[in-house]
Amino acid sequence: MIVNLVRTSDPRAVTRELVALGLWVTPLEGGSQPQLRVEEGSRELPIGDILAVSGVESVARPRSAHPRVDAHPPTVRVRSLELGTGAPPVLIAGPCSVESEASAHALAHRVAAAGAKILRGGAYKPRTSPYSFQGHGGQALEWLRAAADSHGLAVVTEVLDPEDAARVAEHADLLQIGSRSMQSSPLLRAAGATGKPVLLKRGMAATVEEWLLAAEHCLVAGAAAVIFCERGVRGFDPSTRNLLDLGAVALLAGVRRLPVIVDPSHAVGRRDLVAPLARAALAAGAAGVMLETHDSPGDALSDGPQALTPAELTELAASLLGARA
Amino acid sequence: MIVNLVRTSDPRAVTRELVALGLWVTPLEGGSQPQLRVEEGSRELPIGDILAVSGVESVARPRSAHPRVDAHPPTVRVRSLELGTGAPPVLIAGPCSVESEASAHALAHRVAAAGAKILRGGAYKPRTSPYSFQGHGGQALEWLRAAADSHGLAVVTEVLDPEDAARVAEHADLLQIGSRSMQSSPLLRAAGATGKPVLLKRGMAATVEEWLLAAEHCLVAGAAAVIFCERGVRGFDPSTRNLLDLGAVALLAGVRRLPVIVDPSHAVGRRDLVAPLARAALAAGAAGVMLETHDSPGDALSDGPQALTPAELTELAASLLGARA
Amino acid sequence: MIVNLVRTSDPRAVTRELVALGLWVTPLEGGSQPQLRVEEGSRELPIGDILAVSGVESVARPRSAHPRVDAHPPTVRVRSLELGTGAPPVLIAGPCSVESEASAHALAHRVAAAGAKILRGGAYKPRTSPYSFQGHGGQALEWLRAAADSHGLAVVTEVLDPEDAARVAEHADLLQIGSRSMQSSPLLRAAGATGKPVLLKRGMAATVEEWLLAAEHCLVAGAAAVIFCERGVRGFDPSTRNLLDLGAVALLAGVRRLPVIVDPSHAVGRRDLVAPLARAALAAGAAGVMLETHDSPGDALSDGPQALTPAELTELAASLLGARA
Amino acid sequence: MIVNLVRTSDPRAVTRELVALGLWVTPLEGGSQPQLRVEEGSRELPIGDILAVSGVESVARPRSAHPRVDAHPPTVRVRSLELGTGAPPVLIAGPCSVESEASAHALAHRVAAAGAKILRGGAYKPRTSPYSFQGHGGQALEWLRAAADSHGLAVVTEVLDPEDAARVAEHADLLQIGSRSMQSSPLLRAAGATGKPVLLKRGMAATVEEWLLAAEHCLVAGAAAVIFCERGVRGFDPSTRNLLDLGAVALLAGVRRLPVIVDPSHAVGRRDLVAPLARAALAAGAAGVMLETHDSPGDALSDGPQALTPAELTELAASLLGARA
Repeated sequence: MIVNLVRTSDPRAVTRELVALGLWVTPLEGGSQPQLRVEEGSRELPIGDILAVSGVESVARPRSAHPRVDAHPPTVRVRSLELGTGAPPVLIAGPCSVESEASAHALAHRVAAAGAKILRGGAYKPRTSPYSFQGHGGQALEWLRAAADSHGLAVVTEVLDPEDAARVAEHADLLQIGSRSMQSSPLLRAAGATGKPVLLKRGMAATVEEWLLAAEHCLVAGAAAVIFCERGVRGFDPSTRNLLDLGAVALLAGVRRLPVIVDPSHAVGRRDLVAPLARAALAAGAAGVMLETHDSPGDALSDGPQALTPAELTELAASLLGARA
Repeated sequence: MIVNLVRTSDPRAVTRELVALGLWVTPLEGGSQPQLRVEEGSRELPIGDILAVSGVESVARPRSAHPRVDAHPPTVRVRSLELGTGAPPVLIAGPCSVESEASAHALAHRVAAAGAKILRGGAYKPRTSPYSFQGHGGQALEWLRAAADSHGLAVVTEVLDPEDAARVAEHADLLQIGSRSMQSSPLLRAAGATGKPVLLKRGMAATVEEWLLAAEHCLVAGAAAVIFCERGVRGFDPSTRNLLDLGAVALLAGVRRLPVIVDPSHAVGRRDLVAPLARAALAAGAAGVMLETHDSPGDALSDGPQALTPAELTELAASLLGARA
Repeated sequence: MIVNLVRTSDPRAVTRELVALGLWVTPLEGGSQPQLRVEEGSRELPIGDILAVSGVESVARPRSAHPRVDAHPPTVRVRSLELGTGAPPVLIAGPCSVESEASAHALAHRVAAAGAKILRGGAYKPRTSPYSFQGHGGQALEWLRAAADSHGLAVVTEVLDPEDAARVAEHADLLQIGSRSMQSSPLLRAAGATGKPVLLKRGMAATVEEWLLAAEHCLVAGAAAVIFCERGVRGFDPSTRNLLDLGAVALLAGVRRLPVIVDPSHAVGRRDLVAPLARAALAAGAAGVMLETHDSPGDALSDGPQALTPAELTELAASLLGARA
Repeated sequence: MIVNLVRTSDPRAVTRELVALGLWVTPLEGGSQPQLRVEEGSRELPIGDILAVSGVESVARPRSAHPRVDAHPPTVRVRSLELGTGAPPVLIAGPCSVESEASAHALAHRVAAAGAKILRGGAYKPRTSPYSFQGHGGQALEWLRAAADSHGLAVVTEVLDPEDAARVAEHADLLQIGSRSMQSSPLLRAAGATGKPVLLKRGMAATVEEWLLAAEHCLVAGAAAVIFCERGVRGFDPSTRNLLDLGAVALLAGVRRLPVIVDPSHAVGRRDLVAPLARAALAAGAAGVMLETHDSPGDALSDGPQALTPAELTELAASLLGARA
């Protein structure tokens, strides 16, 4: 953002005012009029607040690259559920992979009992290795839907291949785009074209701006809404698998007023850090958290070490959602 | 960590048990006995829990490189104040730089009124540019001490040059080592040698292990205690200045049981994100937060845009510390 | 990697030998026999060299997760062209997007004259913004093929949607998987299933191991071969767009003996740094470089600022390929 | 950089011209005149080239924060040796730590025989752990000086504590500031105040701009000159210890015309990657390379795994410096 000053103004006085408003300001030289640059990382303010400062002539900035995201409401409906800023926190829980009809039902039962409103579970799994379990596909979608219906839960599951989008949309209330796919434009368009709301996980090393642009792809294609999901970005320290970026959550939820949830299980990959980070996520403004759970983590076909046991889920859910009868 | 199995055991059965405990396990081949590797990012467990698994013969791992940190207590005394796990959250507040005797007193008054227990303020400033304000040095130390004493506050301030350590220790209750200095071993030793507790900020790109080793330097040299301070690590996204790593906070506070606080002001550098991240820090297990405040941020000699006004500080403090009379 | 020692050996003596071989070694405690851990970042050695050290009983390590990549030859045929370790350096050049039939022909002419052997050009463009030019699709494939054929060039172009893979394979000699798609398993499988060789760009924040696993996906699905393409990873410094990782190139080319090329244009995005980085890439062991060029960069539909003019391409090609008549 | 256009100009036409020059350009809206923003990562051009574009009224940008660095010459004298752009490549070699008088002499002999002109060796060692070898201090300085003098070599060694700067300057021709100290302003000033040239290693996660500002600290304090040393930045992939940033080297050497060398030994920490990266460094424009060598790497008190043997040094030196009698 560039602040153009009237020729007779005192740039230092204007700078003082802008700094007082919370802006990082750098004076520029050589222009045909006095000019100041407002740096990234400044507080976001209505443009009128800047124009109201004495000595400011005009403010120039790029046109937003994501007008539909800018106009997106802060809360979203997933079936009858309201999710977003102002709404009560939402718990999404379930296994990494849907492993069988029986296990889907057993988990849905426990997940609902713990107070979760949305059942998660992988049918199509994005895997780093071609030799890892790739999911039970279409059949798992049906198990998941039936298990959720029996317990009054909504369903979120990942779509991985554009050509599966329609089929996933038949069974899911919310289509998940995974981290590895956040910049796959054919997939973003296919998911959006189903007209369902999309749960858009942040890419491993995506900037907030790239994340918003990915959402714009979905919305342009027809998505009913986008819920953002922070799941940790790539960091340099192996002691916690990824770096959970709650600054980005606070920015999306508090400043941009967008619905955003957090997946602490994938963010840290350590069962002993899931609970404190889930609490921190809600404190930072997240509208909900997504937790991995498994009836028997040691037998899980994927990601067992980060899955909570049903008892751990129940305890954490109680602390996150407040006392329940 | 390597888990050596008895020759007749079934590595897959042992793996299942270890995964159930929350460990990421990789089988190794070629050894003279069956062996499993436990990956970083696994839950931390007492070694006995692993040895108790049927089929495990022994567990081999490196000797800790920081025995004094491992033995460090979870709470620390700074003057009469208790800070750490279990103790009530502590608020540290004050200006980036101590600018004058009068402003130090005015801020100490407000800081104390808001419920903070420790006054922060820079006398010696680490600056990226040689042309930026470098601090009022020794004189600022005296202003800070007097202002704090008038309002029943403890003092924390940064030491930058090893030869200033003794002088800083005369005036401060807690010696701060800044991010830029976290790996300066002469400074770590000089600060430790004063016998005071040290507030050790994490380096811009330091791993948790490097951070613990820096603390070990201080403790070996004689520091009474170390309080860790997370202030964001270098990330790739300019929309939030740094990446606040609350996973590391949860790890230090909850798993390693060390006293750790958070500086959200430097972490994000945006006034509009300080409050949600301060709340998230406490939710993640931090024992306190350190906030930058200034009577008139537009006139601050450094870091004005991220400083809270006294009114903003009072409001945030109330929400963090709970209702106060 | 774990080195198990005979019980009567002296771990310090063995460590000395292993360090002399170029290994970073950490002693482990608590095992049923003396054990040493070899850290990542050690020189890669035949296992026999370690077993030959006196006192070593056995070496245990995980089974490779990418056996087909491990068995991949160091050179690859793309039509009649040999590319890889030992073969002469190969130049790939062309526009970011194929913009018209005429421009494709004009560029192919200049590209061939400069000594390049493969024509690159985007038909399907992966774009961060939904409002950017998305490519001329199938029609551009035909223009590209015809232009290449007229000038004796092979063709490489990106496939973005799994359902386009067969069609792209009809026109291209080498299927490019872009950075944003490196972890899209349906696309990796679809590209591999065409039986063509694949040019696999490294993901923005992919580790070398993840990159190798993505190649394994292609090979399992039937790809004739994989050529790796380093194009810079996400860094923290905006002065050079991405961080070109020539250490990874040296590792793949020199240690793992795999065919790897470098795309300096996307790595830095700055025309003034393309030439020195292209030279550095070949010096580090790359088998070739891929350069963006445009007849009139100011009129390019995408990435004009990083495109070389035909004159710049000719000059750089001459310096890279040696003196030409 | 902001390009202010004359009111009657066509911003799209001007953009085309600027893109043709190699600039990434974003149009701004809302200003009192048409304005364009030139993004970081653009080619660096004389300002006059931009002002010459039809329709451009003025160009506004921040004043440089490092005027002394901007005025720094491209070559530097270290004793009688010329180092920098245009001068023949310089080889700096020696052990990580100076371990004894005898070993210093033995290595100096081999280092000189290999064609190196500067002897490196640590007297004061910055160590991550307080329990690692910290160097032989002042005595090692004398050994180093004597060994160098016997073989006609210049000396570079690290200064770690500001109070040692004068003493180090008595024995060394070039004072090294290590990565961990790059932002220690008291040390930068103390090193500069000796009046000697400074070898300034880049901090682990320092941006190029922060690196230039650290050099400005040295120059303001009186340093005769600064030689920049790239040694890898912190990355996310453990397979190569650090990420060698040759884009930054090309930028400093080729665009900013500053003397810059590369330390591939610390960059990768793997003996098998030192040679290809040393070659790549010179190809990218580095004025020299600094290599770690040890008579018997297995017995080294520090960093043995990355040290070249004397035979490896001799072979690499020959390939880097060209054929020698």
